[in-house]
Parts: sequence; structure tokens; C-alpha cells
Amino acid sequence: MKGTFYGIGVGPGDPELITLKAANLLKDIDVVIAPRTGNKANSTALHIARPHLRHDTEILELTFPMVDDSDELNSAWENNKKTILSLLKQGKRVAFLTLGDPMLYSTYIYMLRLLAKHRVNMQTIPGITSFCAAASRAGFPLAEGDDILTIIPATCDRDKLSQALAVSDNVVLMKVSRNTPELIKLMQSKGLSEHAVMVSKCGHPDESIHYNINEVSDLKPVYLSTILARKHPTGM
Amino acid sequence: MKGTFYGIGVGPGDPELITLKAANLLKDIDVVIAPRTGNKANSTALHIARPHLRHDTEILELTFPMVDDSDELNSAWENNKKTILSLLKQGKRVAFLTLGDPMLYSTYIYMLRLLAKHRVNMQTIPGITSFCAAASRAGFPLAEGDDILTIIPATCDRDKLSQALAVSDNVVLMKVSRNTPELIKLMQSKGLSEHAVMVSKCGHPDESIHYNINEVSDLKPVYLSTILARKHPTGM
Repeated sequence: MKGTFYGIGVGPGDPELITLKAANLLKDIDVVIAPRTGNKANSTALHIARPHLRHDTEILELTFPMVDDSDELNSAWENNKKTILSLLKQGKRVAFLTLGDPMLYSTYIYMLRLLAKHRVNMQTIPGITSFCAAASRAGFPLAEGDDILTIIPATCDRDKLSQALAVSDNVVLMKVSRNTPELIKLMQSKGLSEHAVMVSKCGHPDESIHYNINEVSDLKPVYLSTILARKHPTGM
Repeated sequence: MKGTFYGIGVGPGDPELITLKAANLLKDIDVVIAPRTGNKANSTALHIARPHLRHDTEILELTFPMVDDSDELNSAWENNKKTILSLLKQGKRVAFLTLGDPMLYSTYIYMLRLLAKHRVNMQTIPGITSFCAAASRAGFPLAEGDDILTIIPATCDRDKLSQALAVSDNVVLMKVSRNTPELIKLMQSKGLSEHAVMVSKCGHPDESIHYNINEVSDLKPVYLSTILARKHPTGM
């Protein structure tokens, strides 16, 4: 197949936190796949990419349902794959955008897996993760020396979460949005609430940083919050 | 204090994997602190930053011994802090460069801690981590859905490492350079060697990727290797 499929990480939300490599590649892209979901994250990714695109770059809206085992959803993904394969056969350079990093909790991984069964040229460009951006904004070191850092989706199984909190020096809780009081109680029981920050909408105009998560346990955090926590003080 | 101290992540090694924000900031920097250690990582960071610096930007070489509790080393760090504070008092914009991300296993964290005790304007710019770059290069998804991802320095205590491997879906082993056969034996015992890759010198001209770590257990890996591993197949 003559074309190339690019997975491009555009960073956590601040348009300046895209890499030179991603910005340069976007200039050569023929078609950008824009998921048609009403999902805010997707329109943010396109907003970040747009200043780097040529005027004649095509924006192709496709529907990507949440990944699931049902036949209906699989067929939507299969159809999208066919559309992408047909563009690649025409020799097009096709980009799939990802907020943050493409290899971390991204829809791109599913598309990569579908395309891997075909002979497709693929290239993935890494992006700044939301937790690295949050750590820099909050002045909160993620890990040093021999620290173990565990990245945990707040949506994961509670037993698994509890075990992971027990063995980690430092943790990042991603996708914090519901059950915050319960989460913070669990972190308190593992000695992880004293040295912690919660960063919401990092890099966006309405960003907020809470330096005492014990006090925010009654607050319902907004979408896109990340909690960074350590067993030992930051010393700052 | 009138000046500002910047911690700037320059990414994993590929000069194009610096962010627009870092590249733009470097244009306004008066003094770049370059650790005088003979450490390859430091000269790589300066090499990545240099094309973005002004011709009149000062490169100030300072000696930063490995962090330790001894008085001699502490006094070297204290002297460096005094030098930096004096530049900041003159209103200078001073940059400290970090390969990868400044808040992850970086010397910058120690300098930040020393300066935090003074009233210094500080700004940290996140960088692409070595493990995100390695995952993109190898086409190896780091985490998806509710996966827990654990970042482990290969130099850490073996009991701690063993516990962390047991509770993780996916792991990143950083700073792999010694004891590879022993490490891989441990990963085999935790079901983490079947779906794994080892990436050495990611983004450098002499980069190498091993897709079967069971076969590389006798190899002595070069400096700057990262192992990415999952309990479940990548499906690629």
C-alpha cells in the first residue's frame, strides 16, 4: 500500500505542547480523521492540529463508537477501517489525532490493531501525557531515584486499585470524575492523601489545581481531572 | 527576584521531539545551565536545545555530583544554587535542561527543591518521556481501558520490584543496563516476558528494538534501554 497511516499525539491540551515532529508532519497530511462523537477531547485535538494543516487538507468525520464486544459497534469500526484502507490505497497520508500520547489509553490503539492485520505503513508520534503536564503545572515531582510510579485509571476495579496503591511509592490517578470521596478515602487508608494534588483541565483557560485533596473530597471534580500522589513529601 | 528559573524537558533524544513551547522559550533564555559531568545525557540535551538558542545565550557549565547525603556533594549543589540565585537576582532567564520529562527521575527535581526555599519564579515545561517514545517506535501499546501501568526503575529493590510486577497489567522498566538475565527471569515468573519489547537508544541513529526479550537475556544491553511489557498480548 502506497499511503501511510500516522497516529499523532498532540499533547494534553495546550496548543504549544505539541512536538515539532507532529507539527511538521501535519503539514504533509492529506486527510485527518476526525471522530464524529460530540466528544470534547476530539474537537480539542483537531483545534490543536488545525494551525499546522495545509488549506487543502481534508477533514474526514467518522463515527467511532466506544470499543465494546457488540456486533453493531464492531461493524462501525470495520467500516472505518475500510474507508482508511481505501485512502491508503490511493497513496494518501492519513492522520489519526490523539490528545496526550497515542500509546496510552487511546482509541488509536484499537485502530492500529485493526490495520495491523493489513500491510499498511504506519508511524506513531508520541505526545506529552496529561500527567506529565499536570506535574509540571503543579510543581509536583512524579518520581525520583528508585521510586515506583503507578498509573491507574480511576475507573478500574477497586481490589486491583487497592493492591496497586499499596505497593506504589507514587501514583497517578487518571480519568478522575466520579466517586471522588470514595477514592480519596482509599488513598487516605494507603498513606497517599497527605502529599497529593488534583489538577483539572490542565493547560486549559479554566484549569484548576487543588493542593489539599483531603479538602476536596466533597467536590465533584470536572471531566479530565488527574490526581498525583506520593507516600513521601515533595520537599518543596 | 526579577528573573525566572525554567526547567525544560527536551524529550527523549530525537531533536524533533521537543515541544513548540520549549523551543519558543529557549529563544528567550539568557543563561543555559549545562551540567559538567561527562554524562552523555547532558550533552544530548544541550545538542537538542542549541538550534533554538540565541547566539548570545550564555552556556554556563556547573558540576552537579550524583545526589547523595555526603557533605561534599551537598556543598557543590549549594554553590550551584547560589550561582543560579545570583543570576536570577540580575533578572536573568535561566534554563535547566532535562532529557525526557523534568518531573520524572530527573536531577532538575533536586534543584527545584533547593530553589523552592527561596522566592524564585519557576516554570517547568513537560517533555516526551523515553517510554512513550519507545512505545511509539515499537508499535507497542502501553495501556488501554482499565489497565494499570507501572513505571519501575530497574535499579530498585528486588522485593519491591517483584510485588509491583505481580499487581501490574503492564510495566515499563527504565534504566535497564545491568542484571538483564535476572530481570528477565523475574519477568518470566510474573507472566511478563511473552509480550514485551526492549528498546535501546530510542530515537538515536544507533537505536535497536528487540521484539523477543526471552532471546536477549544473555545480551548485555547498552545504556538507556527500556523494557515495555504486558500480561495480555498487544493483538498486533
